[in-house]
Amino acid sequence: MLRLYDNHLSGNGYKPRLLLAHLGRAYDHVEVDILKGESRTPEFLARNPNGRIPVLELDDGTCIAESNAILFYLAEGSRFLPTDPLARALTLQWMFFEQYSHEPFIAVARHWIQHVEMSEAQRAQLPAKSEGGRAALAIMEGRLAESDWFVGAGMTIADIALYAYTHVADEGGFDLASYPAVCDWLGRVREQPGHVPM
Amino acid sequence: MLRLYDNHLSGNGYKPRLLLAHLGRAYDHVEVDILKGESRTPEFLARNPNGRIPVLELDDGTCIAESNAILFYLAEGSRFLPTDPLARALTLQWMFFEQYSHEPFIAVARHWIQHVEMSEAQRAQLPAKSEGGRAALAIMEGRLAESDWFVGAGMTIADIALYAYTHVADEGGFDLASYPAVCDWLGRVREQPGHVPM
Repeated sequence: MLRLYDNHLSGNGYKPRLLLAHLGRAYDHVEVDILKGESRTPEFLARNPNGRIPVLELDDGTCIAESNAILFYLAEGSRFLPTDPLARALTLQWMFFEQYSHEPFIAVARHWIQHVEMSEAQRAQLPAKSEGGRAALAIMEGRLAESDWFVGAGMTIADIALYAYTHVADEGGFDLASYPAVCDWLGRVREQPGHVPM
Repeated sequence: MLRLYDNHLSGNGYKPRLLLAHLGRAYDHVEVDILKGESRTPEFLARNPNGRIPVLELDDGTCIAESNAILFYLAEGSRFLPTDPLARALTLQWMFFEQYSHEPFIAVARHWIQHVEMSEAQRAQLPAKSEGGRAALAIMEGRLAESDWFVGAGMTIADIALYAYTHVADEGGFDLASYPAVCDWLGRVREQPGHVPM
């Protein structure tokens, strides 16, 4: 059976959890306590030398790291990953946007505010994190003002990737009410049959 | 004809340039002067609201942003993108690693040191950028000590994505001599027929 190394607070971990629920696929769930260093043990680093969850372990022990690569692997052959090469590229475009221009701001601000005692350096960087997060939300707002979904006519793994940290952006100090099209889209994702909360 | 909006100093722009050379595909090259704000004009933002190069424009005007999504689109059907679903996922795993755990440290340190006058805040963050970059290089070293290429038996877009900023990491203050397997791999990439320098 598939095994997911995960942490219940993590949006990156929630991405494959949400997709697996939509796909109706059973899996073993292994909780990894990041704050206690459990993603830095030799055993864990053998699965992902980068010391990050989520990690998907296949039946033969092969491990896939990086939440969005896991989404791509699991979604292949399903309605959540388009087959058309251009739609596929645009799906990946939004997923790389998520990891480069969204997560490092919105997820990191949330993590600092919610889960750790902020250092002096982190406190100094928080305004830049907030500014970057607002820029990402504005780009999403622009796209969602013209389309119900990021790519094509239904929910894809681009939506799942972006939903994970956007729907808890308020925990990072972001005021989602300023982004009405984003709020409508959050509702659409939440109302999909098979949805599970984080 | 394909059109690539690019900047000659950018490793992210070099990725599609290198792949297009290997594929032997002709394209129009449009130089965008980032430091002069040319990626922030209304015309450019209509192509990529995130205001970043590279952007690949197709014949019908459709634009694809995010260097690694562009690589995936261009490599489809070629030897640079495996067809096996697991190999494909691992290719993407290394490409997401590149954008999250490598580029924000190695490329950003290089950019600050080479191309801009560092602000006080940037100077304060430089040690953390160096530490993160060394961690990424150590992970690459571990993989390349056991395999000639990141995925499978030949060069893929995972190698191209990681080569772009690794081969100029010295410009970001990184001492590549500490990573012998990485140095050997850089040589293998450089010696591929059809290689073009940055």
